Amino acid sequence: MSAHTLSQPQIAPFFPPRRTLMGPGPSDVYPSVLAAGAKPTLGHLDPLFVGMMDEVKILLQYAFQTQNEMTLAVSAPGSAGMEACFVNLVEPGEKVIVCRNGVFGERMRQNVERVGAVAVLVDNEWGTAVDVAAVEAALKANPDAKFLAFVHAETSTGARSDAKTLCALAKQYGCLSIVDAVTSLGGIELRVDEWGIDAIYSGSQKCLSCVPGLSPLSFSPAAVEKIKARKTPVQSWFLDQTLVMGYWSNSQGAKRSYHHTAPVNALYALHEALRLLADEGLEAAWVRHAAMHAELRDGLEKLGIEFVVAAADRLPQLNAVHIPAGVDDAAVRARLLNEYNLEIGAGLGALAGKAWRIGLMGYAARRENIALLLKALGDVLGK
Amino acid sequence: MSAHTLSQPQIAPFFPPRRTLMGPGPSDVYPSVLAAGAKPTLGHLDPLFVGMMDEVKILLQYAFQTQNEMTLAVSAPGSAGMEACFVNLVEPGEKVIVCRNGVFGERMRQNVERVGAVAVLVDNEWGTAVDVAAVEAALKANPDAKFLAFVHAETSTGARSDAKTLCALAKQYGCLSIVDAVTSLGGIELRVDEWGIDAIYSGSQKCLSCVPGLSPLSFSPAAVEKIKARKTPVQSWFLDQTLVMGYWSNSQGAKRSYHHTAPVNALYALHEALRLLADEGLEAAWVRHAAMHAELRDGLEKLGIEFVVAAADRLPQLNAVHIPAGVDDAAVRARLLNEYNLEIGAGLGALAGKAWRIGLMGYAARRENIALLLKALGDVLGK
Repeated sequence: MSAHTLSQPQIAPFFPPRRTLMGPGPSDVYPSVLAAGAKPTLGHLDPLFVGMMDEVKILLQYAFQTQNEMTLAVSAPGSAGMEACFVNLVEPGEKVIVCRNGVFGERMRQNVERVGAVAVLVDNEWGTAVDVAAVEAALKANPDAKFLAFVHAETSTGARSDAKTLCALAKQYGCLSIVDAVTSLGGIELRVDEWGIDAIYSGSQKCLSCVPGLSPLSFSPAAVEKIKARKTPVQSWFLDQTLVMGYWSNSQGAKRSYHHTAPVNALYALHEALRLLADEGLEAAWVRHAAMHAELRDGLEKLGIEFVVAAADRLPQLNAVHIPAGVDDAAVRARLLNEYNLEIGAGLGALAGKAWRIGLMGYAARRENIALLLKALGDVLGK
Repeated sequence: MSAHTLSQPQIAPFFPPRRTLMGPGPSDVYPSVLAAGAKPTLGHLDPLFVGMMDEVKILLQYAFQTQNEMTLAVSAPGSAGMEACFVNLVEPGEKVIVCRNGVFGERMRQNVERVGAVAVLVDNEWGTAVDVAAVEAALKANPDAKFLAFVHAETSTGARSDAKTLCALAKQYGCLSIVDAVTSLGGIELRVDEWGIDAIYSGSQKCLSCVPGLSPLSFSPAAVEKIKARKTPVQSWFLDQTLVMGYWSNSQGAKRSYHHTAPVNALYALHEALRLLADEGLEAAWVRHAAMHAELRDGLEKLGIEFVVAAADRLPQLNAVHIPAGVDDAAVRARLLNEYNLEIGAGLGALAGKAWRIGLMGYAARRENIALLLKALGDVLGK
């Protein structure tokens, strides 16, 4: 039967170099997290594996600072976590106030429209925080709005928004809050229960310093009620969290039922990354990110490099800086990558070609990385 | 600020034992695949990484036996690959003939209905192949049907359907074919171009013996045309393959654009698993699965164990067998797991409690596994 078989490609094993990852993510992965992901695969219904999943849930609840029962990791990247929030919570025709101050606010709008709902946009300039007054005005002007959606830490610009105040406003005006915490979880203060966040998602590959591919997610009891009251089915089978919870839930010792095959090895890695975060302590991790940011900022300013975001709104873990006049963006990044095995991020969207994004996320937020970056960037810029 | 922080969980590192995985998947993962997934993480736009993705695409084209340009791995499990086919190809109101002879045909129906399309069901008994005559009758009776969807290898029953004939019928009646190859890819003959398959998806964790979490997928030029002619947007942003291809495509040296963060380490693992398949040769892998199945079958029959599926329709890589009368299903599986570190699968759906599913997938399809299984099962059954 070989006469009509397409020929075998000859491809060598792939050996990536060890880069220092200081872009917008993936960030440097903890060595023990990489090792955890290579441990022997178990079946997704193996009692030892589901016991580990119970621990992942406890660790996620700690990282999110929540007691939400519906807390789990979506078996796909952060974009799927975002979509899981919108497809589960929002029904066709409902109104969602979407704050847009970067790429990911715009992506939220697209998600809202793809579920057949209506997005009311609150636009803020790229590189600024979401304007609380403008949000309140939108909430007042749209008493029929059911949701307020915003990005806590805009990965495209490095701006931090006031999640606590925004969620309180949402509650005051009878809206559920949907919060993008892809870049914030583990890097800056975030308290799901205390702030009254209703739906939140993150990514494994930012301040958790895990491999990319999973999206931690948590829904409040009010969000779960909203899902239970749906009149229409969730349009996605894969992301239908009511079905997914049949597998993740361990309440009342109920038997886990098969929904989809869990990404077993990626979950080993997430377990280890969350365990390291709990060992360090969440607040200690927040303090470390802030301290490393201050060190990086001082060094960049000595090189004459300026930040995109005003000091009060800066994310410590994602530093967007203006590319100095006359400097070749791509050439500098290529030299850092090729000569120093150091990755920094390009600008995205409105900041493409205008900014670099320097990440200090999770395991990447340490002194030796900052020293390398400052010396290498200074050398490449001839400073 | 620690006064109101939920306390740190104390959780130990997780050390899974090495199991032999002979259930319906995940299957035994090749040691070099586990090692590949632990290699240093690169950025998802790093030139070295995107070069590796080009190789993944070439290797997937080989595994699928296709020259389809739109061939890639969805960044999520096989269920998401299934959903990617339906949400991209099928528009609301369109008619899809869905063959249902197990759990995954039923899942296809749910996908069809969640896109607002109409499923015309062709039901076949669990454990039998899809009935070609019944499909032809349905195609004749529904000249407005746009798609024929079926499962090549039903993981829930171990039945193989005649994909070549079914796809030819679809073409004859002006339908595009959508084929579930989750359990077939790499295990039995499958020729996407020669058989005229229009949309196909698989999973990483079956006969490819990669870690779970990725879904290889391929669309024919006719399927791509159908997507381009859509009148409505794809309801999923994450699974919108037109957007995804902006990242995966390397045609004309176009720059890859960011869609979502690729699961970098899982893709290392897939690269290695596909490389091993190409090294062995696709047809050699098919022959090995058939030979190992024959060996297992002979041994099981000596134990007096009977198959669910008639010989002509059996999948070599997934052996559904009747649980002998008077035998405690769960107790036997637990003893195999706890005493022999050997996993076999429970029955699913209509076969729950009635059948075991013994997988011989990819790296698991080797003589020492069969020997272990036959001896352990014989001992536990007291034979």
